[in-house]
Amino acid sequence: MTKNVLVLPGDGIGPEIIAQAVRVLDMVNDQYSLNIKHESALVGGSAYDETGSPLPEDTLTKAKNADAILLGAVGGPKWDSLDMSVRPEKGLLGLRSNLELFSNLRPAILYPQLADASSLKPEIVAGLDILIVRELTGGIYFGQPRGIRTLENGEREGFNTYVYCESEIRRIGRSAFEAARQRGKRVCSIDKSNVLEVTVLWKEVMEEVAKEYPDVELTHMLVDNAAMQLVRAPKQFDVMVTGNMFGDILSDAAAMLTGSIGMLPSASLNAEGRGMYEPCHGSAPDIAGKGIANPLATILSVAMMLRYSLDAKEAADAIEAAVSKVLDLGLRTSDIASEGCETVSTQAMGDAVLAAL
Amino acid sequence: MTKNVLVLPGDGIGPEIIAQAVRVLDMVNDQYSLNIKHESALVGGSAYDETGSPLPEDTLTKAKNADAILLGAVGGPKWDSLDMSVRPEKGLLGLRSNLELFSNLRPAILYPQLADASSLKPEIVAGLDILIVRELTGGIYFGQPRGIRTLENGEREGFNTYVYCESEIRRIGRSAFEAARQRGKRVCSIDKSNVLEVTVLWKEVMEEVAKEYPDVELTHMLVDNAAMQLVRAPKQFDVMVTGNMFGDILSDAAAMLTGSIGMLPSASLNAEGRGMYEPCHGSAPDIAGKGIANPLATILSVAMMLRYSLDAKEAADAIEAAVSKVLDLGLRTSDIASEGCETVSTQAMGDAVLAAL
Ligand SMILES: CC(C)[C@H](C(=O)O)[C@@H](O)C(=O)O
Ligand SMILES: CC(C)[C@H](C(=O)O)[C@@H](O)C(=O)O
Repeated sequence: MTKNVLVLPGDGIGPEIIAQAVRVLDMVNDQYSLNIKHESALVGGSAYDETGSPLPEDTLTKAKNADAILLGAVGGPKWDSLDMSVRPEKGLLGLRSNLELFSNLRPAILYPQLADASSLKPEIVAGLDILIVRELTGGIYFGQPRGIRTLENGEREGFNTYVYCESEIRRIGRSAFEAARQRGKRVCSIDKSNVLEVTVLWKEVMEEVAKEYPDVELTHMLVDNAAMQLVRAPKQFDVMVTGNMFGDILSDAAAMLTGSIGMLPSASLNAEGRGMYEPCHGSAPDIAGKGIANPLATILSVAMMLRYSLDAKEAADAIEAAVSKVLDLGLRTSDIASEGCETVSTQAMGDAVLAAL
Repeated sequence: MTKNVLVLPGDGIGPEIIAQAVRVLDMVNDQYSLNIKHESALVGGSAYDETGSPLPEDTLTKAKNADAILLGAVGGPKWDSLDMSVRPEKGLLGLRSNLELFSNLRPAILYPQLADASSLKPEIVAGLDILIVRELTGGIYFGQPRGIRTLENGEREGFNTYVYCESEIRRIGRSAFEAARQRGKRVCSIDKSNVLEVTVLWKEVMEEVAKEYPDVELTHMLVDNAAMQLVRAPKQFDVMVTGNMFGDILSDAAAMLTGSIGMLPSASLNAEGRGMYEPCHGSAPDIAGKGIANPLATILSVAMMLRYSLDAKEAADAIEAAVSKVLDLGLRTSDIASEGCETVSTQAMGDAVLAAL
């Protein structure tokens, strides 16, 4: 049976890194006879420029019909002054929400070859392997009412709504516990239950979900403490589960602990395991078009896609092994450049991964 | 003219660290003839235990009449199962809100003597000196409506409201720019303006405020990026200004970069400069009563109080110099213990500061 992958290069460095990732996908497709077909579509700022919408109908239709989506990145200063309703980010948020990709898996893994890249002391981060499970289609990102209104006294007021219902919390909770079962069997749920009612409910529902997983340990931590503990002793965590906004902040902090955010893939899954895969880093407009971006996070996103949505574990393993091998060989893009290693271009890094495959 | 200080020991290690800080206050009061009187009152869990309220009327009245307030810390597992309306944190939030202490100044400073304590590489944090200016009486902490309700389908839903009006943003903006004028003349405003309307308004108003301070540079950063940049290269910041919730998270992360959160004071000021002063760390129930807590953050909070609210700059300088001296002497409480240094008790650390004065 043919599997359909939708490729969304997006903005900034998106097209460059996606080009290398697609070469890798094509190669394992042949090697492992995976029967994968792929087509491309527009999203983000480049979609806005061509169609007036960051998420054109055509893209959404293709996305709904795809077995998996591979995304580069969206956004850039060029579109910063647009009205919020048509900003590039709305393309990404629209995909997440329309496809109900509620479960965002963001691993923060330190590759032993890149231990130096971290701003933290080696002993604090050596062997780091955390998984952040972030709720992606609810919370304050999508809560209503929202907007900017004028008060009676003539002042303007901005407002957003942070809201979760039990079933939303339960399903992301289960995602986290399922993931923990495959790993260290520990879930730490992050809330601000000493101040925010919505997270009091969050904490309660997590306790209920925990009963379904007696083999997995649940602990709770306040979000401010979690931000501290990530800096102080990140290896204490196995799986962290949290809402959309806290997850945005904590997953970026966790990713940066490794010093090599250019290496980190992510998956956004729906209830059936179909998903969108993308690098954790953004569109990096400052280096776009220079051919120096690190394609490895996107290549590793292909591996995640093969594993989680396309039932091709062997091919996924092969890609991950190939990436590890090019690091062993001492090849580095400029973001992870290091003394004694060779700094290579985006294309050359793609070449090296293909060769290792 | 007599100045009145209200001392609120609070919970956990609060009473122990406050005891040392009050000794220091008494000493400089004599040395510099400051004419300061102080009295104590209950707040937090200990207030709840005695009166059924975490912020008794008597405490609030005394707080309103005080020229400055010195707080230890509130909260602990003992009160975790209480209804949110009477939890220890409500005492703290009630003081902030009733006294309109909207401007929370949280310095993250790395003492050269404690450079080792950081989990970050020395070159990343050496000389670190950031000031986080956090809005403290608005945003999602106080927004209405809030609560947990039952939906028509029988599910429960939790909700909170993130709201700011122009005047709230303007006054905290001015606090930040005023502070920046005394320092590196750079303000970085933190928002999530690619997703949250309330922070679109935040960003706009910050731009307006910036016009009043042509000598201070304003930049903007998204909160997820700010969390990353704090880990990657924290010395790029001078003053960061942000809302209540983001400020809670980022200021704790920034404090932890120093590895010595037991050293960091904070000030919460109202429009007239009256304020509440407290250590950045919490009530640390796990070590309460053992006599090992670090009193220096509270002692340095006394210095901040003298400087900002009691017009006693010299005494403030003297306290800060005394703290630096005891560090030079190699005295450390257990949280900042280090090879070659002497680990001392809370009381012995207080003794040493008094001796240095
Ligand atoms: C681009 C932006 C809307 C997005 C988010 O906030 O979710 C990004 O920061 C991310 O984490 O994927
Ligand atoms: C105790 C708690 C309510 C408080 C807050 O969230 O503001 C604390 O974390 C702080 O930062 O002062």
